Amino acid sequence: MGGDHGPEEVVNAAAQLSQDRDDLRTLLVGPGDAVSQLLDEQRYDPARLSVVHTEQWVRPDAPPRDQLDAQPDASILLAARLVAEGRADAAVTAGSAGAAILASAEHLGRVAGVRRACLAAVIPTERRHGPRQDPFALLLDVGATLDATARDLVTFAAMGSAYASAVSGNPNPRVALLSNGTESHKGPSEVVEAHRILSEIDALDFAGNIEGLDIPRGTVDVVVTSGFLGNVVLKMLEGLGEVVADLTADVRARKYLQGLGLLLLSSGVERVRRLLDWESYGGAPILGFTRPVIKAHGRSRHRAIANACKVAAKAARSDMVRTVERAMTDLPFDEDAL
Amino acid sequence: MGGDHGPEEVVNAAAQLSQDRDDLRTLLVGPGDAVSQLLDEQRYDPARLSVVHTEQWVRPDAPPRDQLDAQPDASILLAARLVAEGRADAAVTAGSAGAAILASAEHLGRVAGVRRACLAAVIPTERRHGPRQDPFALLLDVGATLDATARDLVTFAAMGSAYASAVSGNPNPRVALLSNGTESHKGPSEVVEAHRILSEIDALDFAGNIEGLDIPRGTVDVVVTSGFLGNVVLKMLEGLGEVVADLTADVRARKYLQGLGLLLLSSGVERVRRLLDWESYGGAPILGFTRPVIKAHGRSRHRAIANACKVAAKAARSDMVRTVERAMTDLPFDEDAL
Repeated sequence: MGGDHGPEEVVNAAAQLSQDRDDLRTLLVGPGDAVSQLLDEQRYDPARLSVVHTEQWVRPDAPPRDQLDAQPDASILLAARLVAEGRADAAVTAGSAGAAILASAEHLGRVAGVRRACLAAVIPTERRHGPRQDPFALLLDVGATLDATARDLVTFAAMGSAYASAVSGNPNPRVALLSNGTESHKGPSEVVEAHRILSEIDALDFAGNIEGLDIPRGTVDVVVTSGFLGNVVLKMLEGLGEVVADLTADVRARKYLQGLGLLLLSSGVERVRRLLDWESYGGAPILGFTRPVIKAHGRSRHRAIANACKVAAKAARSDMVRTVERAMTDLPFDEDAL
Repeated sequence: MGGDHGPEEVVNAAAQLSQDRDDLRTLLVGPGDAVSQLLDEQRYDPARLSVVHTEQWVRPDAPPRDQLDAQPDASILLAARLVAEGRADAAVTAGSAGAAILASAEHLGRVAGVRRACLAAVIPTERRHGPRQDPFALLLDVGATLDATARDLVTFAAMGSAYASAVSGNPNPRVALLSNGTESHKGPSEVVEAHRILSEIDALDFAGNIEGLDIPRGTVDVVVTSGFLGNVVLKMLEGLGEVVADLTADVRARKYLQGLGLLLLSSGVERVRRLLDWESYGGAPILGFTRPVIKAHGRSRHRAIANACKVAAKAARSDMVRTVERAMTDLPFDEDAL
């Protein structure tokens, strides 16, 4: 219910998945009447799709805490409960990230050693990554934990690396801290301290600090920063995309450019197109909980929602959470600090 | 001496200025022999150019503190001293920003009420600004104060606004805080607190919070953030520019695009070209000191250095520092906190 385009896109995605993928079953959590009416309008396989009814849901334009307290059957709480009870293997939402984090904390609990959750995002890069040559990198945190401590940053690095290895099949993801210089002493104290700790973890392929210019270049596979900085960076990338957005729709323009041999320009446009193409990314994980939770962009249409569900299935099948748990045991934190 | 291209570009800029501008006098601070040799190779007006000799200078690739301690006649210290003694009205450097800040703190002192200096940068925007329709906005801090407190952020806002009004002739610059949401409660505690204080200052045209996507759009004239975030954002803009850099040199490509009526693409390329064209910006101020100090980009060629000198002259003539001092008296800080 919380996505920008209402329940229709979510229902369409589930209907499509029920026809295309015989290895997935989707539970739609929301108002039964509205969902049934939307389902009546299209083809779907009822053996692979069911509806879990609730009238309550979190509005994305107001703080989630009070709304969750007032609505114990809010759809995101119900979804988290279904996952906690083993009736589903992963949760997907296009609604408020804050609500998803609070609901996950309440019903799923955090992985041992994780003090604060983090929200990842997939960002397009010039360089390609991993065995599938994905044209994107993982940026985290992008808004769950605004003031990240050194320990939080180290945890995000371990979780991001674990996610990339489990879901993108990248056995040794390169991980870096975002800072104002590549030298180990650069950055505020929490970044300097996180750098020191990460340098000593053998299980991680730590590339040190990267700077802002390395983000579009795609120097590393996983970029680690505080939720505040990550959120500003992510929205800036979106804003830069918007500025040249109309181009990307113009097939004629791109053909001309290719015809003229302007490959670099053409690939620049292609990069921007990919940047805007949230549909093909689908979703990014909320990390730190004992079950996979995938956040799709609020503006997702049915294709992006379906892709987010596929990402969720992949995270569940690859046992992503176990990989995160193992990564956490490699961290040199004192038991006292847990 | 500290710029990427050595003293040659600085000497060339001074020689050019001595011929073009009868209202400016330039003092070149550096090794007399080398400077004289470079001057011998070109035309200049000796009435408007003189050399202040020193053999010492700060290398840009090592921390400046120790270098300044070991070299009391480092060129940046000498330049700051010349300004402090009234023998020059403003200082310009393409060397280490950290060294310029330390030298300014030592010889110029801070404006009353300013606890920490800030380094501004000029960033290209889609929207134009001020009475001259400048295609850029001011971003500050970009690296002087990594951990800015609420009070620092408020000070940066007041100084940025004062600079824009004095130097860009913009009587009422719109000022905003960079955050992870437009609502006043969004952001880490120092940003929320700065928002509260800024809302109560009548002398400032405070636009509230902006998000990352507003930076390329150019929603406001002055964007205020911590030095850490500002530095990452600035370098990211440079990195995005680099990715499509080759385009901008290709006049043929831009003509084709215009011919095809692809105005948006053409203006997108134009925007990138402007982004990369540091030469035409010249320099941005280090704010908080009792005299104008202008930092040119390390990679500046003679045109950019000359433009930085013109910016410095404008800052001195418009009494920019008095405007900053007046702005500081409008801030609602307790005397105790000063």
